[in-house]
Amino acid sequence: MDAGRGLSRRHFLHVVGGTAAAVGLGASLPLPPYAGAAAADESLTILAYNENPFGLFPSAREAVIAAAASGNRYPKQTADALRDDIARLLGVDAEMVVLGSGSIEPLKIVTELFSTPGHGPVVAEPTFEAVVMYAGLSNVQPIKVPLTAEHRIDLDHVLDAAKGGGLVYVCNPNNPTAAIVDKDSMRAFLDRIPPTVPVMVDEAYHEWVDNPRHESCVKYVKEGRNVIVLRTFSKVYALAGLRVGYAVASKPAAQRMEPHRLQNSLNTVGLAAARASLADQASAAAVRARNANIRTAFLSWLEQRGFKAIPSDTNFVMVEIRRPVPPVIEVLKQRGFLVGRLFPSMPTHLRISLGTEEQMARFQPVLGEVLQG
Amino acid sequence: MDAGRGLSRRHFLHVVGGTAAAVGLGASLPLPPYAGAAAADESLTILAYNENPFGLFPSAREAVIAAAASGNRYPKQTADALRDDIARLLGVDAEMVVLGSGSIEPLKIVTELFSTPGHGPVVAEPTFEAVVMYAGLSNVQPIKVPLTAEHRIDLDHVLDAAKGGGLVYVCNPNNPTAAIVDKDSMRAFLDRIPPTVPVMVDEAYHEWVDNPRHESCVKYVKEGRNVIVLRTFSKVYALAGLRVGYAVASKPAAQRMEPHRLQNSLNTVGLAAARASLADQASAAAVRARNANIRTAFLSWLEQRGFKAIPSDTNFVMVEIRRPVPPVIEVLKQRGFLVGRLFPSMPTHLRISLGTEEQMARFQPVLGEVLQG
Repeated sequence: MDAGRGLSRRHFLHVVGGTAAAVGLGASLPLPPYAGAAAADESLTILAYNENPFGLFPSAREAVIAAAASGNRYPKQTADALRDDIARLLGVDAEMVVLGSGSIEPLKIVTELFSTPGHGPVVAEPTFEAVVMYAGLSNVQPIKVPLTAEHRIDLDHVLDAAKGGGLVYVCNPNNPTAAIVDKDSMRAFLDRIPPTVPVMVDEAYHEWVDNPRHESCVKYVKEGRNVIVLRTFSKVYALAGLRVGYAVASKPAAQRMEPHRLQNSLNTVGLAAARASLADQASAAAVRARNANIRTAFLSWLEQRGFKAIPSDTNFVMVEIRRPVPPVIEVLKQRGFLVGRLFPSMPTHLRISLGTEEQMARFQPVLGEVLQG
Repeated sequence: MDAGRGLSRRHFLHVVGGTAAAVGLGASLPLPPYAGAAAADESLTILAYNENPFGLFPSAREAVIAAAASGNRYPKQTADALRDDIARLLGVDAEMVVLGSGSIEPLKIVTELFSTPGHGPVVAEPTFEAVVMYAGLSNVQPIKVPLTAEHRIDLDHVLDAAKGGGLVYVCNPNNPTAAIVDKDSMRAFLDRIPPTVPVMVDEAYHEWVDNPRHESCVKYVKEGRNVIVLRTFSKVYALAGLRVGYAVASKPAAQRMEPHRLQNSLNTVGLAAARASLADQASAAAVRARNANIRTAFLSWLEQRGFKAIPSDTNFVMVEIRRPVPPVIEVLKQRGFLVGRLFPSMPTHLRISLGTEEQMARFQPVLGEVLQG
């Protein structure tokens, strides 16, 4: 049972799989020492996934390094602390906050709990596809509602469709269109929808918005309406890789959701980074302002070249390029830029995630050439 | 749309929830700067959760710090690289490896896919409770099979029960008993079980084992049997807080599981730490040897005091203390030590996770006093 010189080889076999045949047993280990992240990405500038291109807040980076020391421990306590922080900032009870490994975790849980084969989720087309994908795993068909002519979510038709739906999903601002739902329209919609139909409002991009016509739906959760709000630390807070998100819901809804979570779904360093970032609103404001400047400049650059984008309140823009997007995506990739994928219902709109000033300065001339070609 | 002096307050409001009433708007932010992990734990020595008490491998700690820089990016690429590393080490195709946010993620998926109300999971009693918990969310009743008199999983009775079950769960070594399944018994069991019944073998503690009677079931997956093996980086690799685990399954089973995962369920730093740790088998062997020494010393200390533990092949021990455990747990907590919880089917066995040499040196005299009292 104890360790001795002869054990290391057997130990090694146990670790790697249990049969000698499974591994090479030469003098060296079958894997070289880990040399850091794969370089595959580094030749491409990524303007594709609506990430924050500026990187972690310095405060968050410090928190990650400090938290690494306790990475051997399960993260229960830090998770409770983050939940309390969020509840305090939003002015809700902690029992109304459901943490997740990204907002995708509560999104999946809500989709599974509230939509059934006869009553699928009502979604805009196009929107963030995860609800449709997760519903599909249970053979639940979504009810898709096309956008208005102005590329806005068509809440009147969503309302009609909701009579047959188990759940409504509203992404605000919407991905991939970057457009907000007007706050008065949202209120009118919520006033008319039957209270038996839960409305899941995905506010992944909320923290980017600086538009007086926009409003978070957390207030409606507080009013006791049947609304569940999703939020994430992946965007303004720059923690896409660290997987921290949450839902704000009524206590009964939150209580129903909690047991469906993965045990310990949030990681120690992500939790620490999220707490540090939330406490660092100065950095959040700076990032938001910087993004707004880059967006203004890019939209103006597009306009000067005769291209129209859907008005954006986020860190990405959806541009009408008046030709099918797949070949443009491909050419841009060959030129070193990865942009958003094709959204089949908007085949001539290209989604571009905003990069840093330096990235945009390199990207714009290339895009200009490609769009002139 | 652009940032100006007047915007920071509005920006701030957007971030924290959308209504001024929700937050205090004094000169200072509503949360103080983040000052690191909560101190609540620090007064207690944690011997409760079967964690690795020695901390991250130095190689993993470096990897975490390096990976923090790309924490703003979604982790897809690193996840593929880890999957390839694991497949290479085990000698299986990458398509047979299903990554998860801890092994709990594939465990939950397998439980949901393969057990139904009429055909619940067959589990030992006691064992790791997650299967029973997740099955219960769909009103699926488990079939519980008591241990043998020697506290081993009773595979003969599991086999009988499996005729009515949708899935068999075998934790090897078992938690909370720390005991392995003899490799010949496992083979005989797998030879007799109907191939239509999937067997999920949870090898969370596999990497601790140094016992010639133990064997990983990855070999049976390779043979094409209906076996799914779970593994984790939470134990020997010391990454419990970083949430990295995986399943090894046949390609069809893996393919069925994949879409049920959370999108991007693994985080950037956990992935980097896992890759670094897997490539650092020297540290794994050292940790295993160190644990074995601590275990030998503790078991011998217990024996000298007339207490018997179930033979342990892991980093925890299950001790017969010949009295109800809850009051002992409570007294130990008052004395500064958090040990394992009550397992109702073994009411006089106390589960103690092994700590460092220093922690055990402080713990043993206290335990001695409490058990003499």
